[in-house]
Amino acid sequence: MRIPGDRASESPLTEPQRPPLRPRKRDYAGPACMPSAGMQEGGTALAAEWRPPPTGPPVHVLHLLLGRRLANRESEERKIGAFEGVPAMGLDAIGSSAYGPEAAMAVLAVAGVASAGWTGWVMAPVIALLLLLFASYWQTIRAYPGNGGAYAVTRANLGPNASLLAAAALMIDYVLNVAVGISAGVGALVSALPSLHPYTLPLCIGILALITIANLRGTHDAGRLFALPTYLYIGSFALVLGTGVYRSLGGGGTLAPVVAPAPLPPAAEAIGAWLLLRAFASGCTAMTGIEAVSNGMGAFREPRVAVGHRTLATIVIVLASFLAATAWLAQGYHITAMDQAQAGYRSVLAQLTGAVVGEGVLYYVTMGALLCVLALSANTSFVAFPRLCRLIADDGYLPRPFANAGRRLVFSVGIGYLSACAALLLVVFGGITDRLIPLFAIGAFATFTLSQAGMVMHWRRVLRERDPGGRGGMDRLHLLTNAAGMAASAIATVIMAVAKFSEGAWITLLVIPAVILLLKTIRGYYDELDRNVRDLRPLDLSHLQPPVVLVVTEEWNRLTDKALGLAMSISPDIIAVHLTQLAGPDCEEKWSELRAQWRRDVEAPARAAGRATPQLHVLTAQYRTIHEPVLALVQELERNHPGRRIAVLVPELVRQRWYQPLMHSRRTRHLRAMLLKHGGPRLMLISSPWHLDPPDPAPDE
Amino acid sequence: MRIPGDRASESPLTEPQRPPLRPRKRDYAGPACMPSAGMQEGGTALAAEWRPPPTGPPVHVLHLLLGRRLANRESEERKIGAFEGVPAMGLDAIGSSAYGPEAAMAVLAVAGVASAGWTGWVMAPVIALLLLLFASYWQTIRAYPGNGGAYAVTRANLGPNASLLAAAALMIDYVLNVAVGISAGVGALVSALPSLHPYTLPLCIGILALITIANLRGTHDAGRLFALPTYLYIGSFALVLGTGVYRSLGGGGTLAPVVAPAPLPPAAEAIGAWLLLRAFASGCTAMTGIEAVSNGMGAFREPRVAVGHRTLATIVIVLASFLAATAWLAQGYHITAMDQAQAGYRSVLAQLTGAVVGEGVLYYVTMGALLCVLALSANTSFVAFPRLCRLIADDGYLPRPFANAGRRLVFSVGIGYLSACAALLLVVFGGITDRLIPLFAIGAFATFTLSQAGMVMHWRRVLRERDPGGRGGMDRLHLLTNAAGMAASAIATVIMAVAKFSEGAWITLLVIPAVILLLKTIRGYYDELDRNVRDLRPLDLSHLQPPVVLVVTEEWNRLTDKALGLAMSISPDIIAVHLTQLAGPDCEEKWSELRAQWRRDVEAPARAAGRATPQLHVLTAQYRTIHEPVLALVQELERNHPGRRIAVLVPELVRQRWYQPLMHSRRTRHLRAMLLKHGGPRLMLISSPWHLDPPDPAPDE
Repeated sequence: MRIPGDRASESPLTEPQRPPLRPRKRDYAGPACMPSAGMQEGGTALAAEWRPPPTGPPVHVLHLLLGRRLANRESEERKIGAFEGVPAMGLDAIGSSAYGPEAAMAVLAVAGVASAGWTGWVMAPVIALLLLLFASYWQTIRAYPGNGGAYAVTRANLGPNASLLAAAALMIDYVLNVAVGISAGVGALVSALPSLHPYTLPLCIGILALITIANLRGTHDAGRLFALPTYLYIGSFALVLGTGVYRSLGGGGTLAPVVAPAPLPPAAEAIGAWLLLRAFASGCTAMTGIEAVSNGMGAFREPRVAVGHRTLATIVIVLASFLAATAWLAQGYHITAMDQAQAGYRSVLAQLTGAVVGEGVLYYVTMGALLCVLALSANTSFVAFPRLCRLIADDGYLPRPFANAGRRLVFSVGIGYLSACAALLLVVFGGITDRLIPLFAIGAFATFTLSQAGMVMHWRRVLRERDPGGRGGMDRLHLLTNAAGMAASAIATVIMAVAKFSEGAWITLLVIPAVILLLKTIRGYYDELDRNVRDLRPLDLSHLQPPVVLVVTEEWNRLTDKALGLAMSISPDIIAVHLTQLAGPDCEEKWSELRAQWRRDVEAPARAAGRATPQLHVLTAQYRTIHEPVLALVQELERNHPGRRIAVLVPELVRQRWYQPLMHSRRTRHLRAMLLKHGGPRLMLISSPWHLDPPDPAPDE
Repeated sequence: MRIPGDRASESPLTEPQRPPLRPRKRDYAGPACMPSAGMQEGGTALAAEWRPPPTGPPVHVLHLLLGRRLANRESEERKIGAFEGVPAMGLDAIGSSAYGPEAAMAVLAVAGVASAGWTGWVMAPVIALLLLLFASYWQTIRAYPGNGGAYAVTRANLGPNASLLAAAALMIDYVLNVAVGISAGVGALVSALPSLHPYTLPLCIGILALITIANLRGTHDAGRLFALPTYLYIGSFALVLGTGVYRSLGGGGTLAPVVAPAPLPPAAEAIGAWLLLRAFASGCTAMTGIEAVSNGMGAFREPRVAVGHRTLATIVIVLASFLAATAWLAQGYHITAMDQAQAGYRSVLAQLTGAVVGEGVLYYVTMGALLCVLALSANTSFVAFPRLCRLIADDGYLPRPFANAGRRLVFSVGIGYLSACAALLLVVFGGITDRLIPLFAIGAFATFTLSQAGMVMHWRRVLRERDPGGRGGMDRLHLLTNAAGMAASAIATVIMAVAKFSEGAWITLLVIPAVILLLKTIRGYYDELDRNVRDLRPLDLSHLQPPVVLVVTEEWNRLTDKALGLAMSISPDIIAVHLTQLAGPDCEEKWSELRAQWRRDVEAPARAAGRATPQLHVLTAQYRTIHEPVLALVQELERNHPGRRIAVLVPELVRQRWYQPLMHSRRTRHLRAMLLKHGGPRLMLISSPWHLDPPDPAPDE
């Protein structure tokens, strides 16, 4: 029973002079005792003080993959500026500059030669809507700098139901964006290098793994890692477009392509309002992803609003100018979208780059960087989705682990969940997710609309509060901006839903209510939990009798010895339970030996010390489980001792080596689980650990 | 803090009149208190009494597959007689009657026409050796009725090293027997129905699963299940052979086959001593499996020795008479073994049956039953291997779970392990395990030799003890029988090892020492464990101060309330630990609210009751884990309070529904694991469970 390192020498019968429990201040500057000192930073110091013993903890595999664990106090250093923000959050929007115009022109292409003149007319309202959304999100970020996403804005201004609609639409959109973005990028790569075609799915999963790991390392690392392709694409494509625009302005409107674009197809349909609207709706897909900055505000370093504005402005200016220049030059060079299904397909951007600079080094640099940007556009979701989920989880609509920061201070559960969902979609669709595209975008535009509506309500309230009855000045301008944005994105949403309904948009319209139901069910669980565990009464001190302690022992050894000493230190009423036939009907029984030992080694010393003698009960384990006879005894004791707590004390051999689980039965673990599950509310469980080796140094996880 | 169902009404300050702890006899006839009453059958009654509440426990999948759990007291009813014993343990030996003669004749076949006359000369010594082994095992069973296998015999008579050699050889042999037996049976099936060829591996795994499940249900069930094919084969083949022998005796030596056997092949080699020895060695493979009865003695009902003798006698008489009749008729009909690799292959038994009764109904019944017997011959291993492993585990040479009876009173771990090893071999070899055959048999014969040697020592000791200096009578006869068996099986072992050395027998000779080393390593682990935990000192009562209790609380709720009450019932020194920043650097902190609640709901009532006030410490969880700050605090407390135990009390929400693990973090579980692993020897862990729903009724596992 002598505990190693035990230096006290009190007599067992006299209550020893207890040392003061409150740690002496001089050698224990650690935890603050709240009643006297309130919360102090000392707590922080202590938490950092505990270090594993220096006997070389094994290097953890997570350490190699994700880097060392980060402390909470390091969080400010891990925040990002605009330089990392553009690659981290802007890849989706910037990559859209490649496929937005193409999507619009593909709709127009049915009009044949007539289409060439209309590209600009379609892209102009797209760019106008983009700038309107830019202005709205600029204001949203300033008004909600902590968490400026549509979810927070609608929750604050339109109530929980609208915010759940926004949450569901955004969550679905982010998951789809990962699958579609990666498979589109790999699709472009595979059409450039057809020999890679058999590896489509492995390539998709590989890129997904890369993005997942980069983001689990933190948004900072992901932003740095993806900066090179992002800025390379921006730089090289700006050079191409700049050259083209310069030539077109100098050449007086007539442009000679270096490499000729594809000839215009024959007309199948006349230009009409419905065709133009559909082209507009397709072009709007270029805008998805610009809300990501508002959802990812938590990633920015201070001054947060300024950094957010800088990031958003960079992304939108790049996107808008690329869209405008592309539309301008496509009309100038008479470029139109080719049919992807036909051989010899070249994307609009490839035709355009070829027409402006020919197929030289710059062409390949631009196309290579574009491939990377497309493949990595999923990163936007990985930055925004976990932070969105954190907000939703904070409100109890998602499981709480979504709100816990992981080893690198990002919300690892959200990242893992996003990655798992996207991997599932990629595997189910074999890495070709074209069919998911119609499901897409609608969610984003529904969210834009809700977010703008929320901002309109916000400004109305601000107007009422600040300047009741007045004109409002700037605030009224803000309100009008958001109202215009709301109207435009509502119109775009309706056009998209109608245009793409039969292609699959109806699935989105079915899934969104299902997700909302799930979110509400989760909230219901937490509400019920809270009702059950909430406690407003003061501590009840009327039943402080020590518990009856059952010590479960298989044989008499030092584990039992330690456990009995422990039991005697907390209660005078101790029953040791020995189980027979635990290994089966034929197993060798040691109970007579145990009984003799009990008399000699337990009862005699207890009597000599004048203490109540612990009793030994022998139970038969008919079903070779410990929990059944122990639960029967517990029930009996509860009947005979109403109000008493029953503690079951189990000596536990700590498994410190890999092979130990193979060498011992899982009975103790099973007992614990069963007692927890089936024991009544008066049961408590005590583990008395026993280490064969000195306790392990904790690995630096 | 009021515990549901609590009817006591003592004042918290006066120690209440404690009801007698020893359960009152009139309403608690359950566990016997050993010091006074010794072990009584009452314990059994109690263990059986605890029944889950009748609110329909879910029917367990194991229940459907394996049947209800069996109690220890049912073990006698589950034991088997000779009727089940023959199918359960004899399938290997009886199936050997089909391939033993064929194996010998295949070796002889190189001698062409000359071989026909030699079959009888080779099989005669095989049958003689079989009868010698029969006599030896008859005596072994009587001398070691509890566990008569080679392992127990050699351990008792030749010491642990010889017994480990026997154990290793037998274990390897049993594993190989499963893989080889199943793949041979499926091979025969596939050659009868070639359309099944692509399904060889699935068929093998399916049969393995069937045998595994039958044996997990218990040897009784397996014996019953496999009785039909066994007795059908014995009956139909006895009819075939009886008819043939009757005709040959009546026909004066000249026999006209109904369907002609294959013509004898041309001679490639002359009959020589080495060829005959190799034929003998191959014929000996018919004998593997006859030791299974001695290993499976534990499965027999009383009178155990008589039932064992009856089973062994049935198996050996069937096998010996089948071998003799087959050899006799093969010579009479000039049947020889055909080359399996060539088209039109027919086994010796197929030729023989065809020759005697033609290819009518009896032919197909006999061949069908033979297929079943071959495919199920693995069952012998499933009966003997787990019981062998149990003996080895009882001696500490195998992990202890091998010695635990499972839900159906058989040693499920051994069955599972055997099945897993065989499945691995089948999968690795694609269901075709011909290459493993040379590795086989040697182990069995080495074991025979060791077992006989052990019996020789046994009789020598018996002679010395019972009749020192005398002639010995029956005992001397027994000794001579075993000595002759030892010599014959030693010779057979050497012949086999030499004849099959280059074909792969050397692998067995390498693997056996490796297995012995593993067994000794396992024993070394248990020896070290025993040295570490053995305790011969009386209970030390010198340090019974109550522990310092740390209550880890995330927020103030009814879980904390219950935990605090529990802590106050076992110790006056309580520190509640609240952790900040547990969800990350930005998480909302409730500690100021908690502090106010603490003053009002804990400190005030404690002071009013005149008790020591629990303290509240606030620690910062820099790495978002609970265990690091708690371990730091524990270290500090251990330094300041030498000799005191530290208890960490964790309120635990019991997860009763499938989705609850998804809704809560795994922090509590992680904390427990980490404290067990890294906490010192003075740390103990207390769980205070909290049930949202009423405790589950226990499922009838």
